[in-house]
Formats: sequence, C-alpha cells, structure tokens
Amino acid sequence: MTDLLQSWVDSANSATTEFPLNNLPYGVFSTSDQDPRCGVAIGDMIFDCHLAEVTGLLSVSDFPLFDAPHWNEVMEEGPTLWAALRDRLTEILGQGSEDEASARGMLVPRAQAQMHMPFMVAEFTDFYANRNHAENVGTLFRGPQNPLPPNWLHIPIGYNARAGSLVESGTDVQRPWGQVKRPDDTAPRFAPSKRFDFELELGAIVGTASDGPVTVDQAQEMIFGYVLLNDWSARDIQAWEYQPLGPFQGKATATTISPWIVTRAALEPFACKTPDRDVPLLLHLQDTGPMLYDINVSVGLRPQGKGETIITTTNYNSMYYSAAQQLAHHSTAGGPMATGDLLGSGTISGVDKTECGSLLELSWNGTVPLVLETGETRTFIEDGDQITLRGQAFGEGYTVGFGECSGTVLPALKDPFAKGH
Amino acid sequence: MTDLLQSWVDSANSATTEFPLNNLPYGVFSTSDQDPRCGVAIGDMIFDCHLAEVTGLLSVSDFPLFDAPHWNEVMEEGPTLWAALRDRLTEILGQGSEDEASARGMLVPRAQAQMHMPFMVAEFTDFYANRNHAENVGTLFRGPQNPLPPNWLHIPIGYNARAGSLVESGTDVQRPWGQVKRPDDTAPRFAPSKRFDFELELGAIVGTASDGPVTVDQAQEMIFGYVLLNDWSARDIQAWEYQPLGPFQGKATATTISPWIVTRAALEPFACKTPDRDVPLLLHLQDTGPMLYDINVSVGLRPQGKGETIITTTNYNSMYYSAAQQLAHHSTAGGPMATGDLLGSGTISGVDKTECGSLLELSWNGTVPLVLETGETRTFIEDGDQITLRGQAFGEGYTVGFGECSGTVLPALKDPFAKGH
Repeated sequence: MTDLLQSWVDSANSATTEFPLNNLPYGVFSTSDQDPRCGVAIGDMIFDCHLAEVTGLLSVSDFPLFDAPHWNEVMEEGPTLWAALRDRLTEILGQGSEDEASARGMLVPRAQAQMHMPFMVAEFTDFYANRNHAENVGTLFRGPQNPLPPNWLHIPIGYNARAGSLVESGTDVQRPWGQVKRPDDTAPRFAPSKRFDFELELGAIVGTASDGPVTVDQAQEMIFGYVLLNDWSARDIQAWEYQPLGPFQGKATATTISPWIVTRAALEPFACKTPDRDVPLLLHLQDTGPMLYDINVSVGLRPQGKGETIITTTNYNSMYYSAAQQLAHHSTAGGPMATGDLLGSGTISGVDKTECGSLLELSWNGTVPLVLETGETRTFIEDGDQITLRGQAFGEGYTVGFGECSGTVLPALKDPFAKGH
Repeated sequence: MTDLLQSWVDSANSATTEFPLNNLPYGVFSTSDQDPRCGVAIGDMIFDCHLAEVTGLLSVSDFPLFDAPHWNEVMEEGPTLWAALRDRLTEILGQGSEDEASARGMLVPRAQAQMHMPFMVAEFTDFYANRNHAENVGTLFRGPQNPLPPNWLHIPIGYNARAGSLVESGTDVQRPWGQVKRPDDTAPRFAPSKRFDFELELGAIVGTASDGPVTVDQAQEMIFGYVLLNDWSARDIQAWEYQPLGPFQGKATATTISPWIVTRAALEPFACKTPDRDVPLLLHLQDTGPMLYDINVSVGLRPQGKGETIITTTNYNSMYYSAAQQLAHHSTAGGPMATGDLLGSGTISGVDKTECGSLLELSWNGTVPLVLETGETRTFIEDGDQITLRGQAFGEGYTVGFGECSGTVLPALKDPFAKGH
C-alpha cells in the first residue's frame, strides 16, 4: 500500500479528499464560459487537460488527445500511453513540480464546474456476478432450494443492455410506464411502475478494442477504469417480461454513472482476489492474479426536502467474478469489443441482508420496509427520492473516491405518449 | 397494387429484376477506383447519389446528405425528406426524364461494385415475434403443453443484442467457441459450437430518433426501411447460458444483413395486417392499420463447392407483431431510440414444419436431418456451408427485392486465443 502522494494543490493532500494525487480520475467538465472538455480531478480543483495540451504543457502523443469532450481518444491508445499520461500528470501536479507556475492557471474549482458523461458509451452489458445478490434474487423468485441457476458458478452470466440509456450523475429519472401483471391481476395492464429500484454497481470501461476471444490477462489490460453505476430497475415490469429473453424495458429507463473514471492504475493498491470457488472455473476464465478491488460502496436515499439516510454499505471485493473475467467471457464467441464498451459488475451485495445493493433485497421483495432516519419507511423508491451511490478505497492516509453517482426520481408522466417523439 | 414503373435504365423494366423503379433501395458501394459512397439500385446498375449531389443533379436539402459512406444523415431527417428524395430519384430515373443525359454518367454496373454496410448501426435489438417459431422453440425446450411464455401474446418480447456484431452480406463467419454443457456432460466444457444455426429475419431500421414513449403510429413513421437479417446462433452455447438473462454469447458471433435498405415506401403496396388475436392487445400496442408486408423469404444452403438447396421458404406476413409494434413497445420505459437502431423481427417461420426460419426447427432440434439436393444431410450448419437469405415482394408485373444476405461458415479456430487482441 502506497502512502499519500503530495501535491502543490493543497486540497489534494488531506486524508479525506476523494481526489488526492494518488487518484487522478478522468472526467469531462464545463464552466459557465466554456464548453465541455477533458479534465483531471485533484483535490477541490480540476486540471484542464485540453488547455494544458493546447499550451504544450501536456504532450504525451504526436496527435491531440483532448480536443473532444470525451476520453475515448485516450482510451483507445492503450496501456502504454495510459501509463505515460498518468506519469506526466503526476509530475505536473506533484509537490515541487517545475510546472506549478504554468499549471496553476489551468485549474478550475470543482464547485464551479458542471460534469458531463466522461466517455462515449459504445455498448453496455450488465452482469449478474455477485453471489449474495444472485442467491437473494434466486431465493425471492425461485425459492431457497436452488437459488443459483445451473450456469452461475461456471460463467459470469450477463445480458446486453442499452447504451442509449446511460446518463451522467445528476440527471433526473422519470418513473417509467410499462406492461405489468400484478399478483391479483387476471390480465396485464399498462401502468406506471410501482416497484422502481436502484442497483448498486461498478462499471468497467473497455479502453482498447479486441476482435476475437481474449484471455483474462488480455482482458485485464484492456480495461481503462471504473465508474459507479446505478442500473435503475422497474421490478414489476422486469418480472412480467424477463422470461425467456431476459431484462428489457424493466432496465431501459436510465442507467446513471458517476462523473469520474477512476483508472485501473489508481485502484491497483486495492487489488484483491476473487473468492475461493466451490467449483473450479474452466481454464479460460480462471483468475491469474488479484483483479477485484477493496472498494467501500454505499447508497444514500434522500426523500424530497429531507435528510439523507445511508441505506446500505458493502464492498466491491464481494464479487464472484472480476471485470476481466466478464470481459474474457464476453469475447468468447468472437464478436468484437470496442473502445467505450461498458460492463456493469452486477449488483454488489454483501452477505448480510443489510449490505444489499438493491431495495428488492433490502426490503425482501417489499415485505420488510426500511425505516429511514426521517422516520419514513421505504420498500421501493418513491417520487422525489434522490438516490446517491458513493465509492471509496482507503489507502494509508489517503482515500481514492469516485465522486457521487446521483439521480432523483420524478413522478411518471400523466400520459406517457403526451411527450411524443 | 401499382404496376411496374418504367425507367430509362432498361434492366430495371423486367418483371424479375429485384430493383425496378418501384423499389429504389439505398446502399453503400465502392468501386476499384473510388471509396464507399451512397447509391441507389436500379436494375443492374447503381445510381451514384454522392456524385449526383456534388454535381447538383440531386438536391433535396440545404446541406449535403451523401458526403458520408452511410445513410444515417438521410435517415435522421425524417419522412418528409424521405418522400422528397424518393420523388426526385423517381423523376431522375423514370422513363422520359429530362435528366437522363446527365444521370447516365452516374450509373455504375452493380457487377463491378463492392457493397458495404448501408448504415451505421446505433443499437441492435432482436425480437421473438413469430408465433410459429415461438411455439416450435417452446415445444422443443419446454414441451408441447405450454409452448408460449405467459407474456408472449401481450408484448413483443425481445432482447438487446450486440450492434458490434453486425456485418455486411458476404462476410465469412467463423464458427465460435463457447461454454457448452452437452446432454452427456457432467460439467460444462469450452469447445467449438456443434449446433451452429441461422435465423431468417427481417431487420427494421429506425430513421428518426425519439426521446420517450411513442405510439404505434408514431413508431411506424420513424421506420426508414428494412433489410434481410441472419442472426447466426450457436444453439449449444445459447442453451447453457440463456437462463435467466437471455441470449448472450450464443448470438454474439455475427449477424449478417443484406446490402440494400428497402424503404417503407417501396413496401407500402405489399402492406398487410397482423393476424387476429386470441387475446386483445393493450391499447398502446394495437395495430392502427396494415403494418406487416407480404414478402416471400427463403434460405439457401450451399455446401462448399456444390450446388445450393433452398431449404425453406416462408413469408414475413406470418409475424404476430409488426416492427412498429416492436418499436412502440421498445420505447415504453422512456429510453431514447436513435437513428440507426436496428430491430430484428425474430425468426420468420410458417405454419408448416418445412417453412421454418432456422435449422433448429427444420431439423427438429437435430433429430430429423434435412436432405439436400446434393444428397448430403444437415441437422446444423457444417464448415464451408454458405447460407443465403433472399426476400421478394411481388407486384403486378414487377418484383421488389432485397438482394442476397449471404455468409459462409469457416471452421473454428484451433486455438481461440491465438488471434489475440
């Protein structure tokens, strides 16, 4: 475990900032006077990479990397350039840097910046790779005898999701309409979802592309970084639609990600192993090193106009499959993987029922209401509730964080077709 | 039913060409001396839209539409421009056209052209919307008592598929590796697929985008046109992985589409209704007019170096749900639909067991081998087999066709990870 690296940006040197020099996460920000551009969070500030490149301070390639409002151009270059960029940023922003004088003018206070999607999402896949979550959901839907599907211990099962539904933190989410068939209904109806939920996940971002099957080691090298990811889920729509083709409109409303891409390099000090296996994995999916991370993740629920309650806290180290294993599996049939592909980890749930990453589990399918600090209770999300995901890894005297991944649920439209197209 | 429209391009005036003036399908082609560009098929020729625009002959908007090697810029403009473009092309290429002299120099023989993907695929969704197919598959996998899932008669169920796996006709398809568990296996293994299959489908292309739920009528207006679509399927991989999250690597190898986008306008004379319903659809999914089409579709199988056998012929009018109904359903949860989204109809199968759109059904899960005209038999696709989809609608003295949608299956790689990334 490395120590806190010192920066000449004072606010980066506290043990509690999420953005010390050890982190250097990548985002896209705008200010009142300037369009979205690439930046790196450092303490309370953002270092403007576009400006640094234009002025010649930041030059790690023969062509411009920061002339677009997304990180895809950096992502597609691969690990050698990623390392060179991180080294140079560490140099520029580090204590005693020769570049401090010029770099000072390239800092923007985070409080004055508006954050945007940090990368262009190519395609989005969501996995189901946490054993506690899979056992909880399996028990709720199929009974406690065989909660895990037969394939679950052998492959990180997942489904293709909708890239177009990705939104940045802070975007409001409208409660969806959908076709549902409630327990007492004799026929389905078209109605607003009554069981709208969050899912606490991490999203792994594919940097370099592939065109054919890749090993777990190769997959690991392809991963650029991670974001927090809330896969909003309408449980009643999902329950009616999901057999036999999987989730579709129940997951189509929105998926929110956090604004900062925390790189694999920043997470390396927190690497840890996947759990021991009941059943050995086939060779092509076996771990070759520690590829999970010890990251504390939590969810806060804030009813409109009231205080927030942290309703769950758990850890990403509880996953059964790493993102590298997911990506390796994703590539087996030979289809290409692209720069900007996003892989959702699947809901992160701890062993204890208070450590679950969804209201479905926390309220045990709506049967055990949560009591909030305001005295109110919740089984699923109510209109006006703000859901905030947070993630932090703790080093020796420093914290690597993701920034908040937040969204507020708005009431369903009175007439869903009024908005038109 | 309209009659054959006469063109000054002689080859467009036969009853058997797939590309009379009535069709005017949109594609992207290149020639030995020139890069991919937009063109329209007319008889044995391609009319070069890019050249026509540059020279001022074709001008239906204030900005260039054909300066990119795809039709997305036209697609996003919407029905008014689509109609204006079709009118102008009909005028230019029609018998007695004032533009014949200048347009003659803008024709390229189709035989000299290489075809490319006609549009940039945004996202790809595949449906399961043919009742014969769903009943066949349900009978094979779950028994004849309840072959249809409970939701099937109420929603056009579908799953998100992989846009990156789309390839143009003529692209070879390598037999995939994957995790499979065969009936005699006690544990899964990683092996080349032994049950590699095609699926005969039509793909509907979303032209104009939406941002919220759309009605069936609005959805119909959003559809730009149709292509043939072969959703290559590894049945053994699919069988092991698909519960509970749906198809994933079993469908990830490749999906082939035909080179020409046949517009909704060209298909209008062949419009027909969806079937009578056992159970009425909810209001938001009900048909408001004929939105299926009477299109004959077939599949040919050509073993390497031998003659082709047409192994199935059926009709797109056998679908239970139209593309407009699928798109309306797709939008219900509020997620955006984008220019370039592709909706696979689902496998098209007729009532008769000889009219099925997959080998899974034609060979009844491998138990009834097909006998080819060469004397060979097939249960699933063998290495070297070329699979060709065709589609034709028959007017009074004319044919509207899609061009061939073809692909040859190559042997699996000896070592799937040899290709690397």
